[in-house]
Amino acid sequence: MPTSFRSVPDFEAPPFKGAPDARFAPLPADGVLPDGFFSTSNLPTYVRVRGEWIAPSRPRMDCVIVQRDGGLEDIEPRRLKAGAMIAMGFAEDGTEGIVVHGGGFLGSGHSANEEFRFMGTEVSRERPVNYEELAGRVLEERNNGGYLLWVVGPALVHSRARTDFEWFINQGFVQAVLAGNAVAVHDMEAAIYGTTLGMTNTGQPTQGGHGTHMRAINSVRATGSIEAAVKSGLVRSGIMHAVVTHGIPYVLCGSIRDDGPLPGVVTDVLDAQDAMREHTVRATGALFIATALHAIAVGNMLPAFHTARGLPEPLMTICVDQTEFVVNKLKDRGTHQAYGVVTNAQDFMTVLRFYIERAMGAAA
Amino acid sequence: MPTSFRSVPDFEAPPFKGAPDARFAPLPADGVLPDGFFSTSNLPTYVRVRGEWIAPSRPRMDCVIVQRDGGLEDIEPRRLKAGAMIAMGFAEDGTEGIVVHGGGFLGSGHSANEEFRFMGTEVSRERPVNYEELAGRVLEERNNGGYLLWVVGPALVHSRARTDFEWFINQGFVQAVLAGNAVAVHDMEAAIYGTTLGMTNTGQPTQGGHGTHMRAINSVRATGSIEAAVKSGLVRSGIMHAVVTHGIPYVLCGSIRDDGPLPGVVTDVLDAQDAMREHTVRATGALFIATALHAIAVGNMLPAFHTARGLPEPLMTICVDQTEFVVNKLKDRGTHQAYGVVTNAQDFMTVLRFYIERAMGAAA
Amino acid sequence: MPTSFRSVPDFEAPPFKGAPDARFAPLPADGVLPDGFFSTSNLPTYVRVRGEWIAPSRPRMDCVIVQRDGGLEDIEPRRLKAGAMIAMGFAEDGTEGIVVHGGGFLGSGHSANEEFRFMGTEVSRERPVNYEELAGRVLEERNNGGYLLWVVGPALVHSRARTDFEWFINQGFVQAVLAGNAVAVHDMEAAIYGTTLGMTNTGQPTQGGHGTHMRAINSVRATGSIEAAVKSGLVRSGIMHAVVTHGIPYVLCGSIRDDGPLPGVVTDVLDAQDAMREHTVRATGALFIATALHAIAVGNMLPAFHTARGLPEPLMTICVDQTEFVVNKLKDRGTHQAYGVVTNAQDFMTVLRFYIERAMGAAA
Amino acid sequence: MPTSFRSVPDFEAPPFKGAPDARFAPLPADGVLPDGFFSTSNLPTYVRVRGEWIAPSRPRMDCVIVQRDGGLEDIEPRRLKAGAMIAMGFAEDGTEGIVVHGGGFLGSGHSANEEFRFMGTEVSRERPVNYEELAGRVLEERNNGGYLLWVVGPALVHSRARTDFEWFINQGFVQAVLAGNAVAVHDMEAAIYGTTLGMTNTGQPTQGGHGTHMRAINSVRATGSIEAAVKSGLVRSGIMHAVVTHGIPYVLCGSIRDDGPLPGVVTDVLDAQDAMREHTVRATGALFIATALHAIAVGNMLPAFHTARGLPEPLMTICVDQTEFVVNKLKDRGTHQAYGVVTNAQDFMTVLRFYIERAMGAAA
Repeated sequence: MPTSFRSVPDFEAPPFKGAPDARFAPLPADGVLPDGFFSTSNLPTYVRVRGEWIAPSRPRMDCVIVQRDGGLEDIEPRRLKAGAMIAMGFAEDGTEGIVVHGGGFLGSGHSANEEFRFMGTEVSRERPVNYEELAGRVLEERNNGGYLLWVVGPALVHSRARTDFEWFINQGFVQAVLAGNAVAVHDMEAAIYGTTLGMTNTGQPTQGGHGTHMRAINSVRATGSIEAAVKSGLVRSGIMHAVVTHGIPYVLCGSIRDDGPLPGVVTDVLDAQDAMREHTVRATGALFIATALHAIAVGNMLPAFHTARGLPEPLMTICVDQTEFVVNKLKDRGTHQAYGVVTNAQDFMTVLRFYIERAMGAAA
Repeated sequence: MPTSFRSVPDFEAPPFKGAPDARFAPLPADGVLPDGFFSTSNLPTYVRVRGEWIAPSRPRMDCVIVQRDGGLEDIEPRRLKAGAMIAMGFAEDGTEGIVVHGGGFLGSGHSANEEFRFMGTEVSRERPVNYEELAGRVLEERNNGGYLLWVVGPALVHSRARTDFEWFINQGFVQAVLAGNAVAVHDMEAAIYGTTLGMTNTGQPTQGGHGTHMRAINSVRATGSIEAAVKSGLVRSGIMHAVVTHGIPYVLCGSIRDDGPLPGVVTDVLDAQDAMREHTVRATGALFIATALHAIAVGNMLPAFHTARGLPEPLMTICVDQTEFVVNKLKDRGTHQAYGVVTNAQDFMTVLRFYIERAMGAAA
Repeated sequence: MPTSFRSVPDFEAPPFKGAPDARFAPLPADGVLPDGFFSTSNLPTYVRVRGEWIAPSRPRMDCVIVQRDGGLEDIEPRRLKAGAMIAMGFAEDGTEGIVVHGGGFLGSGHSANEEFRFMGTEVSRERPVNYEELAGRVLEERNNGGYLLWVVGPALVHSRARTDFEWFINQGFVQAVLAGNAVAVHDMEAAIYGTTLGMTNTGQPTQGGHGTHMRAINSVRATGSIEAAVKSGLVRSGIMHAVVTHGIPYVLCGSIRDDGPLPGVVTDVLDAQDAMREHTVRATGALFIATALHAIAVGNMLPAFHTARGLPEPLMTICVDQTEFVVNKLKDRGTHQAYGVVTNAQDFMTVLRFYIERAMGAAA
Repeated sequence: MPTSFRSVPDFEAPPFKGAPDARFAPLPADGVLPDGFFSTSNLPTYVRVRGEWIAPSRPRMDCVIVQRDGGLEDIEPRRLKAGAMIAMGFAEDGTEGIVVHGGGFLGSGHSANEEFRFMGTEVSRERPVNYEELAGRVLEERNNGGYLLWVVGPALVHSRARTDFEWFINQGFVQAVLAGNAVAVHDMEAAIYGTTLGMTNTGQPTQGGHGTHMRAINSVRATGSIEAAVKSGLVRSGIMHAVVTHGIPYVLCGSIRDDGPLPGVVTDVLDAQDAMREHTVRATGALFIATALHAIAVGNMLPAFHTARGLPEPLMTICVDQTEFVVNKLKDRGTHQAYGVVTNAQDFMTVLRFYIERAMGAAA
């Protein structure tokens, strides 16, 4: 909470000193303002009238400042009649006779002379995602020989983004996959049985489905390795099939909640960190999709920059999650450079692919 | 919380009575199970061995039931050696000598004889969304002369889905738009100034941007009506432009947080309810996108069925929101038929349009 | 989505056959209904009038059924005048001449003959938490020699619930603590430096604070073990201090995101699973607080019942999280018996302790 | 996303110019660092060695900088042996020979010379809530004759905080209540029938419960007003009972989703805004609890300051919600001064009351 203080502006110093009187103009019709009206905020505001600074009464945002009863008052435009005189101008720094004196009233996280504005929250479902730019950056990394890490959670597999991820791997956008046992389990359950945790890819349960992932794990264990499961034809599609087929490196780290695990999963977490770090030191970009644990883990290992092209430049770090919380937690754990996309993993993959395909088509 | 109880199965009654002994088979290799193994759940389980029902010790899910020390024990497959004898089968109803006796242990919301399964939550970001089916249903409604209500919140406009919504209107998928003042304000701010609440469509702030929506409102008020703002050329794009141009009916209901309001907004909420209800009684389908208030409001007015084609049939009700909470709240307020899509409004519009365009292309 | 179907009730069978005519009564005043009015839902509804079944027009919930123009219509009470005749009764099964024919219109997850009702979602921030009952159950477990597992995430430490958790340990409510490296790191950083990740317990940053947890880890490593850090006086308060002092067993499992780790952390996740399972097989109750990973992990190992007192009885499983999502995910991973408390970890600990202290005081 | 740039530090200017060589010291034991080690971040870092600035290879956070193979490398402490030489110091500004050169790599929302730190997100469930301070401020306002607005949503009533709110009203902490129809409906349903939307205060459904709120509304309408419902003895407890009994002013604004409405609800939203504003102009503090719509509405009308004691001072604005999103949205709509408490409304009321009662007891 803001500590209590009282703020007295110094009217003898800038921005007050030397400012002109504010300009006023009449409403042309009931409830209709003259162009160029001054729009209020919720901060302390002072208006110069005949050389004196006056704070309008009844302050609030989204109002106009009206001459009334010899003073000034903040009033909603809808309540005004034609002819009412209102303050004009855009400047809040005194150059047009009006000073908005933030002076600490914007709350913590703002500096004293910041502008009042809306929509300042950095990570929000309400912020537009510029997929053209994202697609362009991802394409650029691939075309320039960059090293893109994909750090993914199992929701990617549940939610049918699996075939989109295969496409990204096949098209050369993936240089390493960092994940946990569950991603590979669900992916190969889908390859072998067409389900994830016994749920079909249209979301229906299957009879006896609670054992299906255990049967998938067992079948892969029987072949000896994920590579053998692919080569034997047991696994004919999906993420693990694509990375094995293309020789893309991957690290699957064990966790306390794993079933199995699959052969190849690194069950000592320090060994897994060491294995993953060999990829983070090479990265020129990273996408974290639908995983809190691995996003923070890899974020911790990832520099905010890379020097693959000589000088330090920002390391593109995209974090896709259903909630703002995971992105902000990632930043709270030091990965400040993360750009948050607050959406569903399935839809993100569809839309990013759509924009990349379009850009590739345009370039062809 | 479940009230405390103790459950004694009646071994003289079905499914126990008349069941055969369970079958056991050996592991073919260390940590590799024989095909057809029985996969455990966390519920009380009884295995028939030489005519007696035995509850394995150390129960847990995702294990196998192992003969050990003259008894039975639930053990993780990875811990077993070749030759260990494990229980076989899929049936949990005694027909293969194993009974899973739920008996109230599945928690509230489950009936006593339900099957243990994963992924049962109805509304979840982890459930796949079947966009082919959604697109098919929306197309079908349009092609059959259905009456689709679109109930939308302002996030739709902030997040660049505005042009997608225009496309849906232009293509005949929208028979009525029910919304609040803010949707129209941001839409027309975007049309006139290229911003929403002063933020550009790539998410950047603009200088003095906090007043921009007030200027947009004022300009429309000056023309006299939303229709006049479109006809005068002030508003040349967007949602309101599209509905006015195509003569699509809309209702904008006032709320306590409105600026302006725009001309045409119904500021008495009872009048607005009455106006909206003239559309809900005609509806054959409804899409609620990124709005809690209006989704629940229209949900309250909307039957769970329609009789437009004679007999009662389910009224397709799709609720798109970033969180499960809004969809579940809608259901908690009685709109049980709602199908939840847990995603970002911007991405939903892109993906649904993509699938509909593909289906239209295929049909052409 | 519900598959499309059309539902024709069989008026020759129950609940239609043999039903009486519905009763109607007049409004005593404008907008005021007679006591005992029939309140509508959004489901297909049929009213018996002079032996015929009539479906009121303009169906919606929260209305009354009005005789109008020779037919029946659903109307909002506020729109009715004194004397208007409305249908009376509470029964929806035909016994008072009105049938609500759900017939599949309640959406998936409902059976065909379920009642229309509000507030059915099992896990919701809007459901009241019965802390008296929770406190009673926790006390009962302690007093009966139960074995309560506490599975906790680091948010518990950040958010000042640390001293409350100490109290629970000191009072004998904790038989085992299952957690990760981070919980112990932040707890001992708080003990040594008064911060967590460099943030004070009033939420303020400290100069150079990003290294503080590394210094805490290093100091403990220098002593050789967590036990030595407590015995040496380096760590004089907090969770680890309390469990070491009271000889409460704990398992700290490593994860891919760990710094350090602290001595005693089990870095091989399979070893950690094995260590934790020795506690889950003894548990008579479990509390999962502010942790998705460990809640699901321990949930997987935990039976839905225990037999500590002979017969199987439900194993109290309480899951506290800020969002419904984690509780539902836990259920989706098979821990159906979990009772969800959707709140902040700090507040949960304060309130549960408050109720337990009150119950203890009342018992004294 | 950060636009691409490359950053070349100017080694001839401060903080580089004039800096001393960095100091190095050996590990006293395997995996144990000397006190005073330099802890790395993920930002470009330069270390002065024999007059030259060297960027350590393999940068990442939470490591130490080690002399190895004639160069410097970031290494995890656990991987180091006794005797390894590591960089020492806390300063990141060159005064100890190490420069952390943020230079734009902290991501948008950070200024170029900010310090790398954790836990910077302003609104987060992980931030501790200082209830002592909150309680102190609320008490202070009451004792100083302040004017506290309470803006509340219906979840407050569902979740059993109703009696706590009564206590706050009775104790003089509430000068005005601003809410919607639903708060009063559920509150009086609870008073008359003991349920909210047909759910008991332990969360159980009741037979026929979906009509109960309609019966409560009807009973109040029959008395003519909320005041009459209290005076007649129909309503004997709860929020509306308390405000009527104590003569506390309230404004109930209609919304598009209202049932009823209750007598006294202002159904024209502009009239309701005008009525609420008479309270916002007098406010010296405001609490927004479990309401997005009304929080933003009242936030829009509320200055960030008040002048009740002469000079402008910050207007205490507390926003309690289950999710960070609502608090951030409130800020995004201009109420930057809001202090967010991310928790359950029921628990907030219990805990705040507990701390206030304790402070009152201490003062007595």
